[in-house]
Amino acid sequence: MLSIRNATASDTKLILDFIRKLAEYEREPNAVVATEEDLLRDGFGPEPKYRCLIAEWHNVPAGFAFYFFIYSTWLGRPGIYLEDLFVLPGMRGKGIGLGLLRRLAQIAVEENCYGMRWQVLDWNQTAIDFYHGLGATKMDGWDTMRLIEPALSRLARGESEE
Amino acid sequence: MLSIRNATASDTKLILDFIRKLAEYEREPNAVVATEEDLLRDGFGPEPKYRCLIAEWHNVPAGFAFYFFIYSTWLGRPGIYLEDLFVLPGMRGKGIGLGLLRRLAQIAVEENCYGMRWQVLDWNQTAIDFYHGLGATKMDGWDTMRLIEPALSRLARGESEE
Repeated sequence: MLSIRNATASDTKLILDFIRKLAEYEREPNAVVATEEDLLRDGFGPEPKYRCLIAEWHNVPAGFAFYFFIYSTWLGRPGIYLEDLFVLPGMRGKGIGLGLLRRLAQIAVEENCYGMRWQVLDWNQTAIDFYHGLGATKMDGWDTMRLIEPALSRLARGESEE
Repeated sequence: MLSIRNATASDTKLILDFIRKLAEYEREPNAVVATEEDLLRDGFGPEPKYRCLIAEWHNVPAGFAFYFFIYSTWLGRPGIYLEDLFVLPGMRGKGIGLGLLRRLAQIAVEENCYGMRWQVLDWNQTAIDFYHGLGATKMDGWDTMRLIEPALSRLARGESEE
C-alpha cells in the first residue's frame, strides 16, 4: 500500500540516505558532501529552500522526490523543479515513482504552476521512455551553463574583467 | 556610470518590458503571456518566487537580471538560477551584463551558494564565448525534460497510469 507524505525535520537522515543511494545509481558515489545539518538548515527553517515528499510502502520508506520552485518569465507563473526522484531498487515496479510524480503534478496544479522540469542522464533510456510515456518532452536548443568555485569568487571580486 | 539595485514593486512594468525585449531577441516575441499583475504577485508578496536586479547607466534603466534560488542535494547548498539576463541593444559594450553577473556572483557568495546556473540558446555563440571567458562550463550528459499542460493535469488526475 503506497502512501506519500511531506518530509519533516526528523526525516533529514532518511533524505540524505536517499540522496546518497541516488548518487550511487548515477555513478557518482563520492559526489555527495551534503550533511544532515545542511538539509535541516535549508529545508526546515523559516524560509525553506527545498521541499521533499517521502513515499512509503506499507509504512516503510521506499522513495523520495526532492523539489523546489522555479519561475517562468514568459508565463509569469512558477514551476516545479524536480531535483531528485528515487525509489529503492527493491521497491520498484509498484508504481511508487509514478505515485510521487503524480503527487508533484497535483501540487503543481494547486500552486498555479505551468508545469514541472527536471534533468535526466542522457544514457538512462529507461527513465527517458518512462517520462515520455507521461507526456514529458525534452527541451532542445538550450545548453545549461554552470559557474562554480573558484570562478564564482573570482567573478564576485571583479577579477574576471578583462 | 553603472549602478545596480534590487528591483521593487514599482518596477514590474520595467521588468515586463525587459522580459518582452529579451523574448524578441530570442526569436520568440509572442511567447510572453506574463502580466504586470503576475510579476507583482509573485515577486513582491510575502514569499517572493523570484528576485530581480536592475542595472542603470547614468540613472537610466539599461538591463536586468531575473533570478531565483535552486538547491543541490549533492552539495547541500543553494545555488542561483539566472532565468533572464538582458541589456538593451543601445547600452551594450559598457560592461553592464558583466556588472550584473558580478553582482549575482557576490550575492551567491553571500548566500552560501555553490554557484550559478543558467541556460543559453545553443546558437548564441557570442554569449557562450562570453560565459566561457568568465569560467563557466557547459553541463554535458544531462537532458532537460519538461511536463506542461495538458499532460500535467492528466498526470495529476491519475489518467497517465497504464
